[in-house]
Amino acid sequence: MVRREVTRVFTPGTLLEEALLPARENNFLCALILNNEHWGLAHGDVSTGEFRLTQAQGIDMLTQELLRIQPAEIILPVETPDLVGLLRPGESAGKIPAGLPIQFTYTLQPYRLFQGTNARQTLLETYGLKSLEGLGCDGLPLAVQAAGGLLGYLANNQGHYQTGLQLPHTYFVSEYMRLDQQTRRNLELTQTVREGAFHGSLLWAIDRTMTGMGARLLRRWLLQPLLEIQAISARLDTVAELVNRGGLRQRVREHIKQIYDLERLLGRVQAGTANARDLLALAASLFAIGRLAQVLDNVKSKYLQNLQIVPSELEALAERIRQLLVEAPPVTLTEGGVIRPGVDGELDRLKQTLTEDQNWIAQLEITEKIRTGIATLKVGFNKTFGYYISITRAKSEQAPADYIRKQTLTNEERYITPELKEREIRILTLQTEINQREYELFLQLRQAVSLQQNLIRPLAQKVAAVDVLAGFAEVAVMYNYQCPEIMAGRELHIKQGRHPVVEQLLPAGCFVPNDTHLGMGIDLMILTGPNASGKSCYLRQVGLIQMLAQIGSFVPLLQAKISICDRIFTRVGAVDDLATGQSTFMVEMCETANILHHATDRSLVLLDEIGRGTATFDGLAIAWSVAEYLAFYLKCRGIFATHYHELNELANTLKNVANYQVVVQELADQIVFLHQVQPGGADRSYGIEAGRLAGLPPVVINRAREIMHRIEQHSQITLGLQNY
Amino acid sequence: MVRREVTRVFTPGTLLEEALLPARENNFLCALILNNEHWGLAHGDVSTGEFRLTQAQGIDMLTQELLRIQPAEIILPVETPDLVGLLRPGESAGKIPAGLPIQFTYTLQPYRLFQGTNARQTLLETYGLKSLEGLGCDGLPLAVQAAGGLLGYLANNQGHYQTGLQLPHTYFVSEYMRLDQQTRRNLELTQTVREGAFHGSLLWAIDRTMTGMGARLLRRWLLQPLLEIQAISARLDTVAELVNRGGLRQRVREHIKQIYDLERLLGRVQAGTANARDLLALAASLFAIGRLAQVLDNVKSKYLQNLQIVPSELEALAERIRQLLVEAPPVTLTEGGVIRPGVDGELDRLKQTLTEDQNWIAQLEITEKIRTGIATLKVGFNKTFGYYISITRAKSEQAPADYIRKQTLTNEERYITPELKEREIRILTLQTEINQREYELFLQLRQAVSLQQNLIRPLAQKVAAVDVLAGFAEVAVMYNYQCPEIMAGRELHIKQGRHPVVEQLLPAGCFVPNDTHLGMGIDLMILTGPNASGKSCYLRQVGLIQMLAQIGSFVPLLQAKISICDRIFTRVGAVDDLATGQSTFMVEMCETANILHHATDRSLVLLDEIGRGTATFDGLAIAWSVAEYLAFYLKCRGIFATHYHELNELANTLKNVANYQVVVQELADQIVFLHQVQPGGADRSYGIEAGRLAGLPPVVINRAREIMHRIEQHSQITLGLQNY
Repeated sequence: MVRREVTRVFTPGTLLEEALLPARENNFLCALILNNEHWGLAHGDVSTGEFRLTQAQGIDMLTQELLRIQPAEIILPVETPDLVGLLRPGESAGKIPAGLPIQFTYTLQPYRLFQGTNARQTLLETYGLKSLEGLGCDGLPLAVQAAGGLLGYLANNQGHYQTGLQLPHTYFVSEYMRLDQQTRRNLELTQTVREGAFHGSLLWAIDRTMTGMGARLLRRWLLQPLLEIQAISARLDTVAELVNRGGLRQRVREHIKQIYDLERLLGRVQAGTANARDLLALAASLFAIGRLAQVLDNVKSKYLQNLQIVPSELEALAERIRQLLVEAPPVTLTEGGVIRPGVDGELDRLKQTLTEDQNWIAQLEITEKIRTGIATLKVGFNKTFGYYISITRAKSEQAPADYIRKQTLTNEERYITPELKEREIRILTLQTEINQREYELFLQLRQAVSLQQNLIRPLAQKVAAVDVLAGFAEVAVMYNYQCPEIMAGRELHIKQGRHPVVEQLLPAGCFVPNDTHLGMGIDLMILTGPNASGKSCYLRQVGLIQMLAQIGSFVPLLQAKISICDRIFTRVGAVDDLATGQSTFMVEMCETANILHHATDRSLVLLDEIGRGTATFDGLAIAWSVAEYLAFYLKCRGIFATHYHELNELANTLKNVANYQVVVQELADQIVFLHQVQPGGADRSYGIEAGRLAGLPPVVINRAREIMHRIEQHSQITLGLQNY
Repeated sequence: MVRREVTRVFTPGTLLEEALLPARENNFLCALILNNEHWGLAHGDVSTGEFRLTQAQGIDMLTQELLRIQPAEIILPVETPDLVGLLRPGESAGKIPAGLPIQFTYTLQPYRLFQGTNARQTLLETYGLKSLEGLGCDGLPLAVQAAGGLLGYLANNQGHYQTGLQLPHTYFVSEYMRLDQQTRRNLELTQTVREGAFHGSLLWAIDRTMTGMGARLLRRWLLQPLLEIQAISARLDTVAELVNRGGLRQRVREHIKQIYDLERLLGRVQAGTANARDLLALAASLFAIGRLAQVLDNVKSKYLQNLQIVPSELEALAERIRQLLVEAPPVTLTEGGVIRPGVDGELDRLKQTLTEDQNWIAQLEITEKIRTGIATLKVGFNKTFGYYISITRAKSEQAPADYIRKQTLTNEERYITPELKEREIRILTLQTEINQREYELFLQLRQAVSLQQNLIRPLAQKVAAVDVLAGFAEVAVMYNYQCPEIMAGRELHIKQGRHPVVEQLLPAGCFVPNDTHLGMGIDLMILTGPNASGKSCYLRQVGLIQMLAQIGSFVPLLQAKISICDRIFTRVGAVDDLATGQSTFMVEMCETANILHHATDRSLVLLDEIGRGTATFDGLAIAWSVAEYLAFYLKCRGIFATHYHELNELANTLKNVANYQVVVQELADQIVFLHQVQPGGADRSYGIEAGRLAGLPPVVINRAREIMHRIEQHSQITLGLQNY
């Protein structure tokens, strides 16, 4: 509104304020540069110091990567930054490169920040490096450009604050299972589809971390499942050890609970906003890690062994913090009261002198009364004139010659003496010097912390990993999860699998477990059954178990062999998108086309109700053709839930297709949902029954039954594919 | 993390920081109290001062009201506030009263804030009232309790900041068209369904406001369409006047553009955070309103006439601000430089004295050099000792007797004299006094602004209304909207209607307009046609035109008679909700049941694809029965889009049902979408063609065609209702 001087510019991607940031999520600033199909992406969180780079090609993959990161702000290079001023409110979306997701906040920045040589220089200077080789981004020019743009933007906007981003970590999108936004959404990994709520998501169900660092790491792991058996096994081994040794798990979690958010604390140290309380929290955390290390003396798994040794420098640092700072320091740093006595000779001397001067003034009233013989003489202090000697008007002519008249009031005269003023100045000066000295000592201490950041950050990350894995163990014990056997082939064997979220939302023991066997003979399940009987739940349960296994968690089932998937595809529900001119059915078809083009025999494909939203015959023909393509051409493992009971015929012609149904018990006047998945195809959907349960007026239900009866009498749907 | 002293608690609902608040949306804090089915709700925005109360019954209506308001934070009374500490992260949702939307942030507060007598007393005291009668909430005890709870919470949390909420405005939910969340969502009023983006929403299409106040008011109007013809006409008349008088419209908009966000400025004045620049912005805005008033000298419509007179007190206030404050004041208020010379005698006198003292010190070096005969004598200043006289060590024995030695350096001695110290203290004192005086004068000025808030707020609201209406006029001219004839009956007559959003997303002139005639003979349209031909677009276009008319906007069409609707219902697409155990089809049926239970013959019902998601025969029977119920029992106006071509038979038996189709042109190898809605029923859906366009692999398409051919040969669906 009104132009102000820039000290530090608040932007969504550069917030450091604890109160405005969710503790358990990152707040990422992204920088992005495009070069035809190729792109470089840097993302950093100034509140935690995390900083990652990557480079790849394909606008679709970029979009998916942005949707995974969920940046608070994305900066883009532009040749003509004036553009920004011309936008309609909220319209920035229209001006960004086509294909990028429009729901994010984009900030256009001068291209020179991103320019190759500049960007490289920015990186080298920021981290005092001679070469980028050690960062692994040497052959990734666009990643370097993005990183330079990001650092340059921070330098311009943060004024005197340091960026505080750690050395960037280079990663490749191909290291992880590819999850598109559709699948993240449909599997409700971090929020529910309908309400967008955390409550009811997979993350909600499995997050038992106790630190913000752990919570953020878990979110990252969840959105980047692993592809290598060895890496998965390292996590699973740790979980297993913590599951099997209950006492160890409890002690580990008790100690982790006492660790503060080291990443955010360090972020504030780097930004120069950490106060004395923050340093004490950091010291307390380092001590807690030390105690944790002692608990871990005879552990076997890698992640736990990583925490057995706390660098002695950090123990010394924690000790130094505790020795220097008082137990309950004030929030402000420039008004003293922060440093313990006995720490600094000069500081102690200044405080001693101050005490003496203060005593001298305290004594002055007595000595001057004696000297002058004026009993009513007083020494006072006021804000504008400082210390003064006050004598009632009546006695004022008895004032000694060295008194300098300063102020005349109705009943009194106020004086100063050079000596009094000198003491006053000394007191003020001393107070200032003490405060300065305390502040200096504090800054030295903070600097000492800052210098150890390269020891603290890796330690924090190790703690975060153990926090996540101990949380996995806790969930495993609480809900009776088992360790999956991770395999290299295509076999997916789930005995008594359960949906991890729905199970927790139901009363204990109510969830009906079900088996799944895919990849050994049968690749595609055709799943039929009544409405609301649990087809979608079963479908997603299989996807979620696969996910959990690949992030290294135990899984909700009795026994499992799980082979690595390269991708999980889902098509569940759809909404249209008038803004881009796509009808619901078109959206469904586009998503299906995407799956058919990209699925491999290592993928898991979960399809719910393909072919709805068009006329019956069209829909059935498409559903049939798609199922056939999946089973016959792609041979990917998959589940195809449908109300087209006619699809059950497919199993007659394709060997790797099998029919399953969710069974119900039909009573006189109602149906009972058993939620059991069994071999065989269903022949009824009980849609009208579902309508009755949903509260459609009785007259509508009765009429629908009547119409249904007539349709059944007069209609038939036959594929006539017997000769296929 | 670390406990700190409370000065002001940051909570999502009490933010004042400009940088963290979207300028064009409110940031509402809600307080809510439930008493069985009855509830009271208060919502306020501390950044703008808006404060509204209501009371009603029914948890469903409450939920809808909360979803409309989209509060940043909701406070609820609780007897045992300890509860809060026990929650898992993100789990607060589970502990709030059943039925409330879980996506909001809830804060539990002690019940005493909400207790009847306390709450009443809080309201009376906050606004210095004797009775609540004037607020219109006298007979609404729960609304008063909610308001008291909200004010009490603010008082506890804002520390020394004032709340700054204006006198509460009481409203009734029944004054406005009821829009449930489903309909707000499906019609994409403020964000798109798929991406949740502003770009592509109705608000995006019609928002041409130029102030934050206008943007916020438009959002409120959009979510609360009117029910009274007179009120709607008042808005339409203003739009018409601004459409017809192009020069006037341009001048009005030019002047409004110069008006800052008075509500937020006033919010900061009330909170005591407004600085000198804010007051200047306020003054500039008041001057701009004065110029606007002059432009409006011969206008006819109510909203414009409302702005013809600017209270003379406000002109005087603006003048006073401009006279007092310098043109470009600093951000800080306590370091002077804010007030013009010539404004305050005392201030000018202090500044004069300061200048004299500063000159005295500037002269001192010369006078002392002459007095002592020491040519190298200097007067200096340092931070700890203040002013001093410096003499080189060699000449130090020549120092006069009245010099007091202060500091000894290697090559110089530093002295003070009582006179110098006295001047120094005077200078410091004067500087402090000047700063204090300036600050006092500024506070008086800010207080003067604060005292006029009851004049400024209504003026700001009038400006906001004209901003919205001038924006409507701008859109009307730009996109050739017309003024609808608003009627009392049931007639809905649209000639060449267009979808306001899709039209703007297509190249100019590409959108194909279509007619709609309902309520005169025909109540229910059965709409068939191919996938992606535009059925959903047409359906929503009718709903959006109805909406626009009832918020007082011109509408995108050639000619229209539009009768008032009590509610608009939509059922378009659906997603399941595993967290509450609802399958997609159950969600669809629940929404349908809700419509059938609540629609009246004054409602507009828009149904897209009822009966999908179950087996063909079930779905067809339900669709038929629902359509029949709408047309025969409820007689509401509606459009029923479907791929069940069998529903075309309904028109044979029910007089108020008619068949329409979106026509396509069938060429040899493809179909051309004409997007024209014409009488008659379609008999094909071209689903496979849609799949081809979406990019399904050719082998899948060809196979689907083959299967389709066989199905058509061997199957039939007949309702057999000929004897109905």
